[in-house]
Amino acid sequence: MNVRSIFYILGWILILEAVFMLLPVATAVLYGESQGMAFVMTMAICGAVGGLLISRKPKNPRFYAREGFVITALCWIVMSAMGCIPFMLTGEIPRFVDAFFETVSGFTTTGASILTDVETISRCSLMWRSFTHWIGGMGVLVFLLAVLPMVGGTNMQLMKAESPGPTVGKLVPKVRYTAQILYRLYVLLTVLQIVLLMVGGMDLFEALCISFGTAGTGGFGVRNSSIAEYSPYLQWVITVFMIAFGVNFNVYYLILLRKFKKALRCEEMRWYLAIILVAALMICINIYDTALSVEQNVRIALFQVASVITTTGFSTVNFDLWPELSRAILVLLMFIGTCAGSTGGGLKVSRIVMAGKSVHACLGSFLHPRSIRRIRFEGKDVDDGTLRVIFAYFCGMAGIFVTSVLIVSLENFDLISTFTAVATTINNVGPALGVAGPASSFSGFSDLSKWVMAFDMLAGRLEVFPMLMLFYPPLWKETIADARRRKRLGGVGRPYPARKGE
Amino acid sequence: MNVRSIFYILGWILILEAVFMLLPVATAVLYGESQGMAFVMTMAICGAVGGLLISRKPKNPRFYAREGFVITALCWIVMSAMGCIPFMLTGEIPRFVDAFFETVSGFTTTGASILTDVETISRCSLMWRSFTHWIGGMGVLVFLLAVLPMVGGTNMQLMKAESPGPTVGKLVPKVRYTAQILYRLYVLLTVLQIVLLMVGGMDLFEALCISFGTAGTGGFGVRNSSIAEYSPYLQWVITVFMIAFGVNFNVYYLILLRKFKKALRCEEMRWYLAIILVAALMICINIYDTALSVEQNVRIALFQVASVITTTGFSTVNFDLWPELSRAILVLLMFIGTCAGSTGGGLKVSRIVMAGKSVHACLGSFLHPRSIRRIRFEGKDVDDGTLRVIFAYFCGMAGIFVTSVLIVSLENFDLISTFTAVATTINNVGPALGVAGPASSFSGFSDLSKWVMAFDMLAGRLEVFPMLMLFYPPLWKETIADARRRKRLGGVGRPYPARKGE
Repeated sequence: MNVRSIFYILGWILILEAVFMLLPVATAVLYGESQGMAFVMTMAICGAVGGLLISRKPKNPRFYAREGFVITALCWIVMSAMGCIPFMLTGEIPRFVDAFFETVSGFTTTGASILTDVETISRCSLMWRSFTHWIGGMGVLVFLLAVLPMVGGTNMQLMKAESPGPTVGKLVPKVRYTAQILYRLYVLLTVLQIVLLMVGGMDLFEALCISFGTAGTGGFGVRNSSIAEYSPYLQWVITVFMIAFGVNFNVYYLILLRKFKKALRCEEMRWYLAIILVAALMICINIYDTALSVEQNVRIALFQVASVITTTGFSTVNFDLWPELSRAILVLLMFIGTCAGSTGGGLKVSRIVMAGKSVHACLGSFLHPRSIRRIRFEGKDVDDGTLRVIFAYFCGMAGIFVTSVLIVSLENFDLISTFTAVATTINNVGPALGVAGPASSFSGFSDLSKWVMAFDMLAGRLEVFPMLMLFYPPLWKETIADARRRKRLGGVGRPYPARKGE
Repeated sequence: MNVRSIFYILGWILILEAVFMLLPVATAVLYGESQGMAFVMTMAICGAVGGLLISRKPKNPRFYAREGFVITALCWIVMSAMGCIPFMLTGEIPRFVDAFFETVSGFTTTGASILTDVETISRCSLMWRSFTHWIGGMGVLVFLLAVLPMVGGTNMQLMKAESPGPTVGKLVPKVRYTAQILYRLYVLLTVLQIVLLMVGGMDLFEALCISFGTAGTGGFGVRNSSIAEYSPYLQWVITVFMIAFGVNFNVYYLILLRKFKKALRCEEMRWYLAIILVAALMICINIYDTALSVEQNVRIALFQVASVITTTGFSTVNFDLWPELSRAILVLLMFIGTCAGSTGGGLKVSRIVMAGKSVHACLGSFLHPRSIRRIRFEGKDVDDGTLRVIFAYFCGMAGIFVTSVLIVSLENFDLISTFTAVATTINNVGPALGVAGPASSFSGFSDLSKWVMAFDMLAGRLEVFPMLMLFYPPLWKETIADARRRKRLGGVGRPYPARKGE
């Protein structure tokens, strides 16, 4: 394992985090909040540690899949551990476990909160909380790739490990330009939403926070009632943008290139929109309230559906009080999630579609045993390797899910609360049903449960493998063996020995 | 599609069912119950229809996977539809949907009942109810294969479609002898249990019913309290036999051949026993009641664990009242199920183990991208084809599960009741949590939910594909096209045209 490269990249991530904290500091200056000092102090720590780590440039920039996974997992953990310091320093979230949970929830764009009254929190902290969504949405390593030229196999491995979805769609041959295009589109859409929200009468501070939460499909709000108090116009704008940020960004790139036909033909996007429409229609009928107008009924159903399937987690009503069919649909939507290559979480529409197609192909192969059944997606054959990884992904998710439910059920809450709390964190949605419903928070869970759910949020955002890799014994055995070997050789030699077939 | 062969086999199944009904008739004669007439009448119907169907022997016995699936699905549906007639004729379960649900629950060895008071039911009906478990446990088509010599590819396709597990382990090269050995082992173990129960003071009638329920991993009892009223000795006997019937029957065959070492090395059995021990230990600690003796605590925990993981569904306590951790463990065990090649349901231990290994292999392939990672199970490499089918099986099950939960949630019961009712039927367990808990029955569900859950029980017992095949449009399109072609040719020609690569 290339340990030195890992530390080097970690260093850059910390420096980036310090730069990102300029936004809450600016907010504090603007509103004259003393809490800004906490951010300045954290910036200093991040800058110092980061500077120390990047001072020694790695001699060997060789980088493989394993390093990609490990750096991604470590980077998100370190970033969250550092990002939660301001909350503790300001005393707004004094305990480390709570502050860490909140920050992980931010970066992983989950939006599950342990705060019961966000309206007492300082504006600079609220800004940072929402900004973590935006940073985590497109991925901080992708940002690093966009701004920092790196060599070797580094780029693709980092992109692969951090980007959601079964396959990484490079927009252009060079990973660096792909990362730049993605971030440009991301900024463009976010700015568009900010403008449209301000046109509707929202002030800049709220427009920024809500747009960050929407863009990253996070869901942290700045009011206790989430989005319920905003005007219908603002709710519609947020609905449209939630859905938009759940679409594969390739589609926007195609639109930018004026390849409208190709953009419209995106199979995953069509399924995604179809699921949203069907789910919203079913819920609308199920919860239809004759005391409200048709527009109100449609708006309520579509908003919650968009919020849950995109794993944003905003709410305009307490859907925990809905009839069971609607509740069941929402739990299902939590698992489906958004398109691959978007900022959202969940299992991803593409994986669900490929799962369905594999059942179809299997029946077909029973019908005609000797004919070869290929699964086609987005007009291309899906190879066995991809299917194998998707299968392993589903199994890994299921394993983490089941283990988490067992541990959290020690709290003796009802099973639906336990089940949906784990489901909402592992899929990066935010609100659950029952104890941690949209009108409530995660403060009622024990520290153990919070650690477990923080792990789940990271596992969900990074799509299982990076987090599992940290617990994969062969990786550590080899790393330790490599370190011993290099020590024996006096620090020279390659970072790890070549193996057969590599 | 070879329609004539399908009807021919269906005919034999009906004749077999008539023969099986001799047991309840004998019970009625012995206890002087007038309800026996209902069974005599049903026997006459089955015999007449069956005789008609077998009168025309198919000219072409060619048989492929598709026919195997279709005949298996149809056979189980027809068998259940016929088997429920006595319940309606005796007036004990007057409505068709209820009687059908109860009989499907019997044949699929689920044991979910719509009866609230089984002690008012006649002994001949109780005997039939329990006997359906025994027939369904090892499979009625496997029985047919054991007693009726068939030609062509018929044997293997039927065995494949009806036997549970990802791969069919033929004990000996000839399918027919395999079927005979399986049934001999099955009878042997059942008789052993009957004897041991009678040694403990149980009368023959109850010993037969309980043994049938245990052997088929069904779970219909003859008392309202299920197994709670029986002595500790009897409860221990039942516990041991429940676990025994959940083991792959290959193991018993190896023991019979005195290959003890090879039998003990069965990987699936080791995992299965390990899961039982760990789960029982965890539950025992979680529910430990100091008012009871250690033996009582262990017995209660082990009995419910064995009952749920083997998908039998007997109970000695109302586990719906247990703390959430124990309830969560039970729900998990429902899904795990027994070993492949046993009489139990669920996803099967082998599939779960292979799923876990595929995650491990996937991590390994990330660590060494160019090395080939094979998954090994029972000392053999698992090929890609098997993994593809397992993946499709999981996806198919998940699809049916989700759809069923959505439909049943229309009842507006709490989500745990809905979720576990579907889980318990699709995994062929029996009792659920909440509304249909062990102290309750499925009578509270609507007709729609009962139809859905009857489908789920069949889908679970036949492992998804046969039931899905019935709803696979290409199958019917081809069948209709074939029929038209043959009509045009005046009934001559092969049952369906050869296709490229077949």
